[in-house]
Amino acid sequence: MAELKIYFDNASTTPVDKRVLEDMLPYFSEHFGNPSSLHDYGDMSHSALDDARSKVAALIGAGDEEIYFTSCGSESNNFALWGIARALKGKGMHIISSTIEHQSIINPLKEMKKEGWDITQIGVDSYGSVDPDDIKKAIKKDTVLISVMHANNEVGTVQMIEEISKIARDNEIAFHSDGVAAAGIIPVDINKLGVDAYSFSSQQMYGPKGAAALYLRKGTRIKPLILGGTQERGRRAGTENMPAIVGFARACELAKDELNKNLKNITVLRDELISGIMEKIKNVKLNGHPTRRIPGSAHMSFEFIEGESILLMLNMKGVFTASGSSCASQALKSSYVLTEMGLSPTLAQGSISFSLGKFNTIEDVKKTLEVLPPIVERLRNMSPIYKEE
Amino acid sequence: MAELKIYFDNASTTPVDKRVLEDMLPYFSEHFGNPSSLHDYGDMSHSALDDARSKVAALIGAGDEEIYFTSCGSESNNFALWGIARALKGKGMHIISSTIEHQSIINPLKEMKKEGWDITQIGVDSYGSVDPDDIKKAIKKDTVLISVMHANNEVGTVQMIEEISKIARDNEIAFHSDGVAAAGIIPVDINKLGVDAYSFSSQQMYGPKGAAALYLRKGTRIKPLILGGTQERGRRAGTENMPAIVGFARACELAKDELNKNLKNITVLRDELISGIMEKIKNVKLNGHPTRRIPGSAHMSFEFIEGESILLMLNMKGVFTASGSSCASQALKSSYVLTEMGLSPTLAQGSISFSLGKFNTIEDVKKTLEVLPPIVERLRNMSPIYKEE
Repeated sequence: MAELKIYFDNASTTPVDKRVLEDMLPYFSEHFGNPSSLHDYGDMSHSALDDARSKVAALIGAGDEEIYFTSCGSESNNFALWGIARALKGKGMHIISSTIEHQSIINPLKEMKKEGWDITQIGVDSYGSVDPDDIKKAIKKDTVLISVMHANNEVGTVQMIEEISKIARDNEIAFHSDGVAAAGIIPVDINKLGVDAYSFSSQQMYGPKGAAALYLRKGTRIKPLILGGTQERGRRAGTENMPAIVGFARACELAKDELNKNLKNITVLRDELISGIMEKIKNVKLNGHPTRRIPGSAHMSFEFIEGESILLMLNMKGVFTASGSSCASQALKSSYVLTEMGLSPTLAQGSISFSLGKFNTIEDVKKTLEVLPPIVERLRNMSPIYKEE
Repeated sequence: MAELKIYFDNASTTPVDKRVLEDMLPYFSEHFGNPSSLHDYGDMSHSALDDARSKVAALIGAGDEEIYFTSCGSESNNFALWGIARALKGKGMHIISSTIEHQSIINPLKEMKKEGWDITQIGVDSYGSVDPDDIKKAIKKDTVLISVMHANNEVGTVQMIEEISKIARDNEIAFHSDGVAAAGIIPVDINKLGVDAYSFSSQQMYGPKGAAALYLRKGTRIKPLILGGTQERGRRAGTENMPAIVGFARACELAKDELNKNLKNITVLRDELISGIMEKIKNVKLNGHPTRRIPGSAHMSFEFIEGESILLMLNMKGVFTASGSSCASQALKSSYVLTEMGLSPTLAQGSISFSLGKFNTIEDVKKTLEVLPPIVERLRNMSPIYKEE
């Protein structure tokens, strides 16, 4: 591995904060009890579970009893979509979503279509933004569910959730939002957002993998995805992953306490990176919304060359980035999010996502601004479609 | 908490072996990459994932590509049931199972019934054993799936899986077995068992919570429960819980290496406990199969008194046991497993499960044999239905 290690792939997953890991450690071999057990070991875990639920709820301003723990963001999204849709099937079978959702929404929707559900997927503008008016127009008599993500995991655009939420409420339609790329990173007040269901995850906010949550507004109907024991009030069976849940809770607490500080610092670094790239390299485009965006996101398209190649050459220099969504990156296809935003296939192919996090420094940005321009130049010189101006 | 700490609830969950935790630690904050990422951090995780899959596969003699990681045993069971049933729906809608399965089989079956599936649940004998002939007789033209657990989590009875498997194969019916209470505890050779799908879990074999697996014989058709990214060859979306998976793999390795030693030691302790109880206390019944049983299981019914009360008084003395399945124990109902075995409701109510594990010692057994008899005596003296002989 290269000497430098600059991690600019925080949208994909974040390292666990040492303070989080410290809180988790006792729950592996000492306080290891099953929260459902009636003895002291069970009781200890049960109390820790209650405490964790409060902390996770507090991050988004929810009631404790509105938080359901799951194993990951993808499970939360599947749980919300399938669960709410199946619970409301008697009312209607039309669902509205967008074309730039995470795959854990896009792919269940495809499967639902096969099962007879009527799915409308709203397109986005060139910034990757869903127009709430388009949602309004798509509503049918039998629309039972709307699902639009809070922030996009690739380009960082933040959607107008409050506006969509109002439309959903006015039409008595359940509204779910995938908040995996937003919660813990930008302020989330669940009552201000007004959604009925909200997915968020630990591993995007310096908590461990293996824990996530689905917020469900009190009274929201849902069918479980995983049936069995009485865990999570009968809505998600399976022994609770206590170390991960305790870690998730601590991560939520830290994210809440340090949100403003992180938001400010990361934004400064990101803007430094973007302006540095724009200054040093020609024919570059910044993707995503200019203002309505999450702080860490710098998604750029470099004309005439392949994002994949930039990524691999940056990797050789010890700078770790992404092209496309990490969940699909093994596929080496260009991102459907960028295509939906109207980027030409070649520009989409030439894209790299730098996603900054709280552990990045100004040194990381400076070093990247040193190593990136020669990589782009070298690749362009090898490109058959590039002609220097 | 009492000074003594004797953990006899290993069927519910086990503490993480220190050697397992040690292997997991680097994967939280150092090797934290998403296995789907294309940079070095992703690559490291990807290699660790491959390595873990081999170790987990080796425990049961499976091929690496036949192992699918999930978040817990309940998820594996739901995945197997729903997934195989939905994939084979075109062939038929009849499913055969037993009445003493874990709730993560029983409750999905209830839901499937509501959705129009035809479900036959085979009863058991007084030892909690399913007669393979009963399975054979229940087969209909449109039977597509059989699901019978390997070992029962409450009474420890091991089912005749090879015999059932042969029947399933002869009739070209997919066969799933829930091995959560068996794998890592008794020898499991998946090809000898002959099943098409097999659930097993980390937290029952001194691995961490948050990781489990579904074995799927090559060619077995299944639909995913959690859709999204391309993880687990498209059959289980969601970022892999790397620390837990690495820990699960190490737990499988240790379980394999130390299986015979543990099996012998635990059986000796259990037999010591059972004979000690039988000797010191009258009107006690040992539940489960006399020989076909997992080594750690000592499930006993104490006449005239409540198991719940024994559990709570043992807890005060620092001896941690279970009554009923831990997944349902908060409900304080008598176990359906015992009722199905034909125990009278009062005898079922008077039951306690001592489940021994590899960290238990002969001291644990001796101390328990000191504290238990006076507890039973005291409770019986308070019982209106007890009359000393």
